[in-house]
Amino acid sequence: MCVLGLGLIGGSLLRAAIHAGRRAWGHNRSAPSVDAARADGFDADTDLVAVLQRASSESALIVIAVPAPAVAPTLTAIARYAPNCSITDVVSVKTEVASEVARQGLSEHYVGGHPMAGTSASGWKVGSTDLFREAVWVVGTDDAVDPDVWMQVAQLALDCGSVVVPAESTEHDRAVARISHLPHLLAESLAITGASGGPLALGLAAGSFRDGTRVAASAPSLVLAMCEGNRDALLTALDEALVLLQDARTELSEQSSAATLVNAGHAARATYDNQETWEITGIVPGQDGWIDDMRDAGRRGGRLHRL
Amino acid sequence: MCVLGLGLIGGSLLRAAIHAGRRAWGHNRSAPSVDAARADGFDADTDLVAVLQRASSESALIVIAVPAPAVAPTLTAIARYAPNCSITDVVSVKTEVASEVARQGLSEHYVGGHPMAGTSASGWKVGSTDLFREAVWVVGTDDAVDPDVWMQVAQLALDCGSVVVPAESTEHDRAVARISHLPHLLAESLAITGASGGPLALGLAAGSFRDGTRVAASAPSLVLAMCEGNRDALLTALDEALVLLQDARTELSEQSSAATLVNAGHAARATYDNQETWEITGIVPGQDGWIDDMRDAGRRGGRLHRL
Repeated sequence: MCVLGLGLIGGSLLRAAIHAGRRAWGHNRSAPSVDAARADGFDADTDLVAVLQRASSESALIVIAVPAPAVAPTLTAIARYAPNCSITDVVSVKTEVASEVARQGLSEHYVGGHPMAGTSASGWKVGSTDLFREAVWVVGTDDAVDPDVWMQVAQLALDCGSVVVPAESTEHDRAVARISHLPHLLAESLAITGASGGPLALGLAAGSFRDGTRVAASAPSLVLAMCEGNRDALLTALDEALVLLQDARTELSEQSSAATLVNAGHAARATYDNQETWEITGIVPGQDGWIDDMRDAGRRGGRLHRL
Repeated sequence: MCVLGLGLIGGSLLRAAIHAGRRAWGHNRSAPSVDAARADGFDADTDLVAVLQRASSESALIVIAVPAPAVAPTLTAIARYAPNCSITDVVSVKTEVASEVARQGLSEHYVGGHPMAGTSASGWKVGSTDLFREAVWVVGTDDAVDPDVWMQVAQLALDCGSVVVPAESTEHDRAVARISHLPHLLAESLAITGASGGPLALGLAAGSFRDGTRVAASAPSLVLAMCEGNRDALLTALDEALVLLQDARTELSEQSSAATLVNAGHAARATYDNQETWEITGIVPGQDGWIDDMRDAGRRGGRLHRL
């Protein structure tokens, strides 16, 4: 397999694939990252054309692990030099990538992916073989997906130590808007409102503020790529949160009570703490109805532990 | 000194005071808490009148550590049985307590306090001698405060291992609305919006959701007491956050950008991470202008490390 982009995610993926016994090599535009990967004993190159030609001749699985703005030109290069290869990606918004893949005529070779793992740091050096261990890895399960490509992508996730959650791209994007992109917007707004209180307020800040603003420390470019790339789903989630907060404002102002929001929020957090997952078994990719069955299982909290 | 209420905060205070070499005893309404405190070697009683009569005869400092709804009747008992004693409290909203203290004619004996420490657990058994170590302890610095009482309260905070931030009650309440009460409302709204995504969304939730909803696990009764007791200041902070989020919604919808909120949020979190505190020295309680000087120092991030 061939990993394009050797940052935190791509670099960890190359390490994890080699660790799992796979044959794998990588590409990065910047020479220092490639030098660092080579110094660590990995097969890496700055020559994209050569890397893709090799992928083509070996029928490798190509993993796109570049920043979101670089996805389109990367697909253009794949279409030109390795049009026969299976393709996946690890970008955090799936419909955006799937649209570009379709625009470039590569849909039949593509199955999207999204490992729910990462840190606020970036670059080859912060990567780790174990980044995906015990993580959840979404494997795109869109209409007309090729079962062979789907299994290649799922096997990669399993080889890296993750469990697989099958989800259609739109459903994935709606879900991560709620649990990953909205948290960033709330954290940003809390950080600003806290800092507006000046040194007195920030000096009194303890755990609730520290935890509630933690992700506001993430690089703005990464946060913007996620939030702007998932605009419509994020607007829906943001609107739901705004209604809850507006209603709480009205209740607090008119009845001096915050009970509706606080009780419902406590119950929702308990639902999260007590959620149960279960192993998906008995669905065979390629068999009649497998796509719908996989999506339905994913919606109900199911995870694949093996193929 | 005499601690009324032996829950997490009061119980930790009794332990810390004894550890610091102070003479201290406590009261709790419920016999099991008193029995547990006694079993741990502390002087505790369920008889409020006897406890207060002893405080009166020994001119003890009384610390009110009862839940917010029990503050008023506790003050009534103090006014009756120990009207000569200095009084402080550890309740998280200060103007509410100060108003009740004034209504009961006890203002000249009272200086409010608020140690910024705690956990989501409650009761005598979860208390600890070290709960206040390295914490920030706000000491109420309202107009006409008695410097002797103020110093007694500040010394208690220092004896427990905290640093003292002087702040007027209204300013304290505005600050904690931003950094303690608003985080709870945002966490509740995030928990609800995430759970609305069903098992798929909750199954994909990772660090940003877990941290952003952590305080939604707090007991609703405690969250409601804080938020409802600090209604006006919380409405101001909530309105600021709502404007930020509404503006972000407009920008995301109309320009497909979240840059204004995300960049400002990142800068605000950096302000928090890089804030510098400094030691207040040279202000002597009782000297001309000391109250204004203390409040000004607190506003600028100053902390008292010794008297």
